[in-house]
Order: sequence, then structure tokens, then C-alpha cells
Amino acid sequence: LYNDTVMDHFMNPRNVGEMENPDGTGVYGSPVCGDMMQVQVKIEDDIIKDAKFKTFGCGSAIASSSMATEMIIGKPVEEALEITNKTIIDELGGLPPVKVHCSVLADHAIKSAIYDYAQKN
Amino acid sequence: LYNDTVMDHFMNPRNVGEMENPDGTGVYGSPVCGDMMQVQVKIEDDIIKDAKFKTFGCGSAIASSSMATEMIIGKPVEEALEITNKTIIDELGGLPPVKVHCSVLADHAIKSAIYDYAQKN
Ligand code: FES
Repeated sequence: LYNDTVMDHFMNPRNVGEMENPDGTGVYGSPVCGDMMQVQVKIEDDIIKDAKFKTFGCGSAIASSSMATEMIIGKPVEEALEITNKTIIDELGGLPPVKVHCSVLADHAIKSAIYDYAQKN
Repeated sequence: LYNDTVMDHFMNPRNVGEMENPDGTGVYGSPVCGDMMQVQVKIEDDIIKDAKFKTFGCGSAIASSSMATEMIIGKPVEEALEITNKTIIDELGGLPPVKVHCSVLADHAIKSAIYDYAQKN
């Protein structure tokens, strides 16, 4: 059902947790399954220096957020905003169709964290 | 959103994993969210001696299965079959309505494992 990349990011998720004094915090709840995702970002000179996520979501949500935070760290904010659930799924090497909504959770929480940063600045 | 008992069983889930030579194995997939749950049981003299679960499901599914496996270990098969997603949620002290389907995953996987045992005996 899940490929090795998805299983790796599920079993050893990157960037799990919370940070002190984040520059932006985003929370998104899925209307499909009710799961929630929180993403926090640290931004300096418009570059995403760090990102952390926290979820009560399923394995696909964990794998998607782990991959997505890896994808945005080191990127300028503008580029990070180009992330979509499709690019996350591509990097993961695919997700079962029924789990696509879990990657949307990561996508939306990241954008909401960046918007939070933008609003404050 | 989640009470202390749910958080405890999510953060420190009991009976996670797989066993060698189970007497019954059950797998159930949720039509709501697409998540899967596997439960295995060890049964001697019609008493459930051990139970293990494995899931890619969300935190509520993990907490529900952790609690549900605790509830059936040591019980006669007949009594274990009386478990419902309602009794699991009661033991957990409640789950948000949108997460009720996650406890159904634990309920159905346990019953399917016991039926697997019954069919073989
Ligand atoms: S949302 Fe799928 S098991 Fe909870």
C-alpha cells in the first residue's frame, strides 16, 4: 500500500515538534477525517530557516508533513508557497488516492504558517 | 480537543506491533478515511492471552486500539466479542464526534481477528 519513502518518513518523521518564538504558526483541520496539523516556521531574510509540525493525523499525514517541511527548509518564502499537495505526493513517490486528503493537510498548514508570518511583517 | 487518557494512549500506545504465530489475525480498512488496522491475538483455552495492533491510522485510532487491546487481554473470547466502539470510547473518556470512526477501526479489527481464530478452530 505504501512505498519505502512514505514508510521511511512515517517511521522516522523529520521536523516533528514545536519551536520557541516561531515567526509564523499555521493550523489546518481536514474536513474529510477531522485530523489537525500545526506547522511552525522560522524565517530570516525571507528564507525559511526551520519548520516543525505536530499532528494527531494518520501515517500519510505524518509522512506528508515530514517531506513537506524538508522541502521548504532553506527555500525563500516565495518558492515555499509554490508547494502543493501534488508536489508533496510526487516527492513521496505517490500516495494511495484515498490518502490524498492527508497531504492537503500539510500543504494548507504550511501556507497558513507563512501567511501568519506575512501578516505580522 | 483530546483528554489526558487519549493523549496518554496516543503518546505511549500499549500492545503495538506484530506477534509470531498468532491464533487469529484481523485487518479492517475504514471506508471513512481509508486507514487500515491490523490486530493479532494469542488465545489459549478460550482466553485472550495477548493482542497486538499495527496501524497507519491517526492518533485516535492508535489510542482506541491501545485501549481496546488492553480491554480484551485476559478476557474470555465471548466477553471480548462484547466490545464495541462505544465501550472503547467510554474507557477513553470520550473522543470528538468526528473521530468516532477511528474507534470503529479498532473494534472491527479485533472482531475480525477473533473470527479468524474461530474459523481455524
Ligand atoms: S482518521 Fe483514519 S483512523 Fe482516524
